[in-house]
Amino acid sequence: MNAHIGVIRVLTSDDASTVAAHGRVIEERYGIPAVSRCIPGQPHGIHDDESERRAEPKIVALARELAADGAGTLVISCAADPALERTREAVDVPVIGAGSAAAAVALGLGSRVGVLGIRDEAPPAVRAVLGERFAGEARARGVHRTTDLQAPEGPAAVLEAAARLVEAGADTLLLACTGLNTIGIRPLLEDRLGVPVVDPVLAAGLMASYTRS
Amino acid sequence: MNAHIGVIRVLTSDDASTVAAHGRVIEERYGIPAVSRCIPGQPHGIHDDESERRAEPKIVALARELAADGAGTLVISCAADPALERTREAVDVPVIGAGSAAAAVALGLGSRVGVLGIRDEAPPAVRAVLGERFAGEARARGVHRTTDLQAPEGPAAVLEAAARLVEAGADTLLLACTGLNTIGIRPLLEDRLGVPVVDPVLAAGLMASYTRS
Repeated sequence: MNAHIGVIRVLTSDDASTVAAHGRVIEERYGIPAVSRCIPGQPHGIHDDESERRAEPKIVALARELAADGAGTLVISCAADPALERTREAVDVPVIGAGSAAAAVALGLGSRVGVLGIRDEAPPAVRAVLGERFAGEARARGVHRTTDLQAPEGPAAVLEAAARLVEAGADTLLLACTGLNTIGIRPLLEDRLGVPVVDPVLAAGLMASYTRS
Repeated sequence: MNAHIGVIRVLTSDDASTVAAHGRVIEERYGIPAVSRCIPGQPHGIHDDESERRAEPKIVALARELAADGAGTLVISCAADPALERTREAVDVPVIGAGSAAAAVALGLGSRVGVLGIRDEAPPAVRAVLGERFAGEARARGVHRTTDLQAPEGPAAVLEAAARLVEAGADTLLLACTGLNTIGIRPLLEDRLGVPVVDPVLAAGLMASYTRS
């Protein structure tokens, strides 16, 4: 297949480069052309049940649009996998959720997966895939929304939370917010903590690369 | 990382090209150098509980040897994930089981995963990862050991079993024997059945490619 992938961003932005950020990471890493668009009206993305519910119909609508415009695979770039099942029913191309993709990669790499996110509880979609290999969750202190990660103290808070998970026995970490890709924290965590760190955007790209051969 | 991966074959063979087959697939597809070796004394591989038990200590021993020789990641190239936990405990590098890697990739791609293998029951390691998304299992008629797949009637029997799974509602197929990679059946199945087909050797290679960046 030579079709591009369609990347659905759940963080609303007017800035084309911000919207394209995750698609660009996938293009660079896996050589798959990506077209990225964002849902409207959610400048802080998905950060609680209400914002998730509100996003769902918008995600399905955007998926139909991207598929109609020729995307051969779709990625919902949010670790909560919002509207994943509904979107799979709505379109005829494979739909990859960044959360379950990350959980899937983590299962392939380790046995006790620590989940690092922006909510107190790991996304249910991630926990469902991890099953018994879920080894705990942690939230970076002071971080409640994806946009908080970009504050100056964001990376240190993430490292501290990640270290807590590894001390508690995690042999693999899963970044349960695609905003953790945006701040490029994975190499720092792997370097400091010595465990594989699964980034949801890269995991989604990895799965997308599998569908194209 | 620039280290090679070590591929553990559970099918004993004197033929270097046979032993290297799965490693070669990973090298070609993912550009990762591979060193392949096989366990001794199992010319029909792993095909029942007894042959699996017998293989386990041999796999751990071979893993230690490959790691000592510089492998940066190990792949156990068998969909039953034999000795996966013991091997992870025995060495300091990531160990990927072809079965859980395939299950992981399947979870990233679909919601109802049909498992196609050489035993009546899907490997427990695969079922454990698939959880509620396991959608049934099928064995190709007349096939009981990986070596049976190479008979002239092998591919047709596999296609028939795969079609049964799709008719029963599977939206994704998982090949639960690395011998199904050896016979190169994936493109035929995808072409005829129109669903993504996850090959355990490619899935293991995909996971290995994630650990190298």
